[in-house]
Amino acid sequence: VQTIAHVRHRSTKAEIEQSVKEFKEGNFKNIPDPDSLQHFRSRESDVPNESHAIPIGQYTMPHPIWSREELKKVNVTHKPPEGFVDRAAYRCVLTMRRIFDILTRFNTGVRDEKKWIQRICFLETVAGVPGMIGAMFRHMRSLRLMRRDYGWIHTLLEEAENERMHLLTALQIKKPSWLFRTTVVGAQGVMVTMFSVAYVFSPKFCHRFVGYLEEEAVITYSKCLEDIESGSLKVWKSRPAPDLAIRYWKLPEDAKMVDVVLAIRADEAHHRLVNHTLASLKETEFNPYKPGQ
Amino acid sequence: VQTIAHVRHRSTKAEIEQSVKEFKEGNFKNIPDPDSLQHFRSRESDVPNESHAIPIGQYTMPHPIWSREELKKVNVTHKPPEGFVDRAAYRCVLTMRRIFDILTRFNTGVRDEKKWIQRICFLETVAGVPGMIGAMFRHMRSLRLMRRDYGWIHTLLEEAENERMHLLTALQIKKPSWLFRTTVVGAQGVMVTMFSVAYVFSPKFCHRFVGYLEEEAVITYSKCLEDIESGSLKVWKSRPAPDLAIRYWKLPEDAKMVDVVLAIRADEAHHRLVNHTLASLKETEFNPYKPGQ
Ligand SMILES: [Fe+2]
Ligand SMILES: [Fe+2]
Ligand SMILES: [Fe+2]
Ligand SMILES: [Fe+2]
Repeated sequence: VQTIAHVRHRSTKAEIEQSVKEFKEGNFKNIPDPDSLQHFRSRESDVPNESHAIPIGQYTMPHPIWSREELKKVNVTHKPPEGFVDRAAYRCVLTMRRIFDILTRFNTGVRDEKKWIQRICFLETVAGVPGMIGAMFRHMRSLRLMRRDYGWIHTLLEEAENERMHLLTALQIKKPSWLFRTTVVGAQGVMVTMFSVAYVFSPKFCHRFVGYLEEEAVITYSKCLEDIESGSLKVWKSRPAPDLAIRYWKLPEDAKMVDVVLAIRADEAHHRLVNHTLASLKETEFNPYKPGQ
Repeated sequence: VQTIAHVRHRSTKAEIEQSVKEFKEGNFKNIPDPDSLQHFRSRESDVPNESHAIPIGQYTMPHPIWSREELKKVNVTHKPPEGFVDRAAYRCVLTMRRIFDILTRFNTGVRDEKKWIQRICFLETVAGVPGMIGAMFRHMRSLRLMRRDYGWIHTLLEEAENERMHLLTALQIKKPSWLFRTTVVGAQGVMVTMFSVAYVFSPKFCHRFVGYLEEEAVITYSKCLEDIESGSLKVWKSRPAPDLAIRYWKLPEDAKMVDVVLAIRADEAHHRLVNHTLASLKETEFNPYKPGQ
């Protein structure tokens, strides 16, 4: 805050140019400085402000850090649908999963690292949509109807960021092909449109839908752990976890990919409970989850 | 995290029902508990989970807390436009302001409390849009193109929340009429649509636009402070600041509305610098602002 205060009255042309110039030169005297930049610059590059000079995930929102015990305790669970909305949500998820499994030949052939990275990237790029859309709609409604939000927004944003970190972590291992990436662009278009429309009509449906999606995510990551154990993805037992993952989940320095998958699965189990709970609350009831919980 | 861990494996039907029931009964044994709820409940109401039982703005993102010195140092400033994009952004802001001033007869007649609350509510309900839209687009692009965000999202979300807190604070003083509120709904529709389209084509234009909007916001709140000094809004010199504002800006317990307006003006001056700076950076350059700065 002190550094900010120092520059807060600047916004004449000369002053903004000065800010930008100093920042680019890595002269952070007057600019809020990512401390760690200095640190990482000397190790990774001499050029400040290049993408690789500042590590990903420096300023993430609070999120749960799982203990070894918590990681192991995660189970596949299912909340039986009640009423029309729940059944519709569950039907949607099951249908999507079946089509997706067939198209990607998930249950036939060997599930090697490439297949897993593709699947994880696709799932996470889709999974990052609902939290952000939900947060945006609740934010806009609060502004528009001039009433409070009841504390939901931060939880939805934390979920969205968490899913995006899952994606960025998977990308540290391998970048999918251009063909695949084009499919992702299309999938996002569909997902954003459908989810937005659904959120206008029934937020309850949307949170229940995410709850069921996360049930499937836990199943998927449990299968991934099996594949790591049983052989087709054994390489993740010894492959070191990316730096990003070690920082984000506060893993030990010598953590392996298997530890990363355990952490991701725990995150998904957490989203599952959160979304099923939100779906069971009225929109004007207070969100029971604090930041980072 | 401990309480969460405790319930994380729950999501059978019975378990979710139990979570929701316990929460509604105010039995937070197993549910992440807003500690302060207990505290406020005894003072304000015996019924948990009613809107008035849990104060607004409990879980806000980090944001600058201004010192008395910083509050006084805020100036009206102007960044001269450079190039077509800047000039277009500045033209837009000036035109909007002129039309708005005429329609609301801002410069004619007495600017009393009602007039000021209306103006502040309208401005803040619009001001909360850009940060959320910008954050959403950058989030979606990161997911879609499978690349990092360069740390912009949190700053944009903090701005959006800060503007929403400005609105909720003003609403503590007086709720505008239904006719006025209908206008706000329409204005948001226009703003969300236009800003979204603009963000797709030119984020630079959008951040510059917000930079100029904030220049005007500082002018407006400076005028508000003049009215508090000179008489037509003298009542805000002695009217106590709402609890929400005292908590949010960490004001002294006996703070008055004039202190709230000073804090809001400092926030706007901060958004002004932030957005002008972001407009001057490439989209793939690292955001120099840390959380809460
Ligand atoms: Fe995920
Ligand atoms: Fe998830
Ligand atoms: Fe504002
Ligand atoms: Fe602002």
